[in-house]
Amino acid sequence: VNSQSLDRVFAACSHPIRRTILERLAQGELSVGEATHDLAVTKPAITKHVKVLEEAGAIVRVVDGRRHRLALAPAPLQEARTWIAAQERLWQRKFDVVEQYLQEHVHTDPREEPA
Amino acid sequence: VNSQSLDRVFAACSHPIRRTILERLAQGELSVGEATHDLAVTKPAITKHVKVLEEAGAIVRVVDGRRHRLALAPAPLQEARTWIAAQERLWQRKFDVVEQYLQEHVHTDPREEPA
Repeated sequence: VNSQSLDRVFAACSHPIRRTILERLAQGELSVGEATHDLAVTKPAITKHVKVLEEAGAIVRVVDGRRHRLALAPAPLQEARTWIAAQERLWQRKFDVVEQYLQEHVHTDPREEPA
Repeated sequence: VNSQSLDRVFAACSHPIRRTILERLAQGELSVGEATHDLAVTKPAITKHVKVLEEAGAIVRVVDGRRHRLALAPAPLQEARTWIAAQERLWQRKFDVVEQYLQEHVHTDPREEPA
């Protein structure tokens, strides 16, 4: 995975307005107006947030006749999730190794049990 | 999940230096020096990156006698992954609904088959 593409998708997800837009688009394609209604920010700010999401590749514009709609593009989100999951797995493995060691070496030896 | 905590963990993951530090710590606790060796940035920049990771709760300092070590704290990463996975699931469900509709309504009706 390209490092810059991870930079962009994580940055895209780091703002609540942009996460709200992604949450709405996860339910289906929407016009820009539908995807951004009732967000308590100015129109120029909205435009900037949408642009950040587009540049991260997290959303795409679907041209439907004369109307532009926004659609979620899941590949960058999946890459971000895969990166996180890989770190969690590595971190978890450490504990699995400790647990396996304990199971193999600290089991109760029946010969040592009281008669 | 607290929205600000998602802001911080996504922002923490949005820089390659910080992802490298997280990748190293995913393999086990390290001193600050070990976690940040060979990164092509200045010492003050390193300090700032470590602080961003700490403020996001993605890493913690473990005091071991007089030595401070850094350890991965997986909960914020897991929250970020869970948020992404939820959007992917919603997005995927749309296609499942279409597919189910097609299976239920566009199946081949045996009465319509040529004799």
